[in-house]
Amino acid sequence: MANSIWKEYPKMGKRIDHTTEFIHNSLDMRNEAIAKMIRDLTSGGKMLRPAFFLLFSGFGPDKKTDDELVPLAASLELLHVATLIHDDVIDDSPLRRSKPTIHTKYGKRNAIYAGDYLFTVYFEIISRHLPEQSYILKNALSMKKILIGELDQLLINFNIHATAKMYFREIAGKTAELFSLSTMMGALVSDGDHELVARSKNIGHDIGMSFQIIDDILDFGDSRDTGKPNFEDLRNGVYSLPYILGLQDNNQALINVLSKNDLSSDDINEAARIVVNEGYLDQAKDIARTFSKHASERIDRLPRGRNRTALKKVVQELLDRID
Amino acid sequence: MANSIWKEYPKMGKRIDHTTEFIHNSLDMRNEAIAKMIRDLTSGGKMLRPAFFLLFSGFGPDKKTDDELVPLAASLELLHVATLIHDDVIDDSPLRRSKPTIHTKYGKRNAIYAGDYLFTVYFEIISRHLPEQSYILKNALSMKKILIGELDQLLINFNIHATAKMYFREIAGKTAELFSLSTMMGALVSDGDHELVARSKNIGHDIGMSFQIIDDILDFGDSRDTGKPNFEDLRNGVYSLPYILGLQDNNQALINVLSKNDLSSDDINEAARIVVNEGYLDQAKDIARTFSKHASERIDRLPRGRNRTALKKVVQELLDRID
Repeated sequence: MANSIWKEYPKMGKRIDHTTEFIHNSLDMRNEAIAKMIRDLTSGGKMLRPAFFLLFSGFGPDKKTDDELVPLAASLELLHVATLIHDDVIDDSPLRRSKPTIHTKYGKRNAIYAGDYLFTVYFEIISRHLPEQSYILKNALSMKKILIGELDQLLINFNIHATAKMYFREIAGKTAELFSLSTMMGALVSDGDHELVARSKNIGHDIGMSFQIIDDILDFGDSRDTGKPNFEDLRNGVYSLPYILGLQDNNQALINVLSKNDLSSDDINEAARIVVNEGYLDQAKDIARTFSKHASERIDRLPRGRNRTALKKVVQELLDRID
Repeated sequence: MANSIWKEYPKMGKRIDHTTEFIHNSLDMRNEAIAKMIRDLTSGGKMLRPAFFLLFSGFGPDKKTDDELVPLAASLELLHVATLIHDDVIDDSPLRRSKPTIHTKYGKRNAIYAGDYLFTVYFEIISRHLPEQSYILKNALSMKKILIGELDQLLINFNIHATAKMYFREIAGKTAELFSLSTMMGALVSDGDHELVARSKNIGHDIGMSFQIIDDILDFGDSRDTGKPNFEDLRNGVYSLPYILGLQDNNQALINVLSKNDLSSDDINEAARIVVNEGYLDQAKDIARTFSKHASERIDRLPRGRNRTALKKVVQELLDRID
């Protein structure tokens, strides 16, 4: 069943269900244990990338049928889940969507191949279903940007001189690229003109940027209450925007804490306290709001109709998570 | 410089050098350390897959220029190296081509992303250079077979009931598939007819099967002298063909050794001794020879000329490694 974010949009909920079904029917390995874990990973999520693709495919003049669109929607989620599986091995994350990760349960061997396998299923679907070879190339270039983003990220870990600009470049690759691929592909397959395609791509980018900043902030958790903020990320030298804003502001107290070799729980709490009290968290929220606002303004210039209304609401709902 | 296997074929050596150059120019990440390791990994190897592709592209009526062929030759090596990098993380191999593996030097994080990145470069090149979208789909399906082979392999590890049939299925996916993709793509881009394409694919398959069996046997090493045969593989429950032939033959001594929980050096030596003395190693060599012979017979039915002569010699040289 589709995620609750779609409950106000039963038609989209149904399309999401079809997309999930298509994904499950595409898994043709004999290794049933791994297949089951992939099915779990592709069930009940927000499926934002397929949803954005489906919404944007309604804006061009060529209205494709869901039989044509659903496989492509599925491909975007498969690409996303493939990167998630590899990220989880890399970060040694024990849980994903409240379930044990593949590498925890079946070892990194299975997890790496499972991610690779999903890349190939994605690749198969777009080779089969995209109407033009040049669109396949656009997918390849997006995927490359995502990977270059991941590899670049490793260069800025543990970097107390990291700047907001570096962070934006990193999440532009890691997250926003796949959102803008999804919205752009929607515009392309519906035969949108150059302006619609460019606008769709920009909207996807802004939604993605806002989404990742918000996600990092949510990871920050109820730091004011529980005192257990994004422990893992900080310990691994991965700084989210609030920390980077503090570092960039030359906040000496924060620099002192984050320069330590091995962060204790107290250090982590102290860093979080600084970031909240000195207003860096609020600044980060404002930046997320600005990206969403830009997206929203551009959405207003898309063709009027149910797709546009749904899109605006979803962008607002994603933003509301930080309020 | 091209590997010594090409020294008798200076023209092919040059084309291989161009292919290597193309690969190096395709690496556009900012992470110079990783880029350097990838350049090392793609230098001086036998480059069999690009070479087979280039040879087979000479058999159809449409003689493409090297400007058109070299990028595609490069793509096949990139796909191969991407799988090698992931295999090395999975097997925790310290060395590859006598150099430290990427994950040993830069951690599994960099290695997994480096492999993923090469997949995307491969994907970009074929999207850009293959003349037909249906050929891209053939690549995707091959890549999927390779991954399904890898995932299936995990099901037969530590399986003392493994059969030669299971082993053949596994190496058909893991190794022969990429060889047959290379030969088939050569026939396709030179606009070969259905018969040439099918024949090329079969030849690639047989060469790949023979190649992997031989590679496993070479891994077996100078077991008669040093007593240090494929230690790692055996300990990881990965049985090569000589062992599987013994298991399938219900050789009780071999079954007893391999059924032990944690194999000591003595156990490994004992297993190797059995496999050599009972003739299973020679049987495996005969099977490799049979695959090479099948390939050779089919090669005789390809268009006469320098490409065919070179191809026959290379197949023979690969086989000679076990004599």
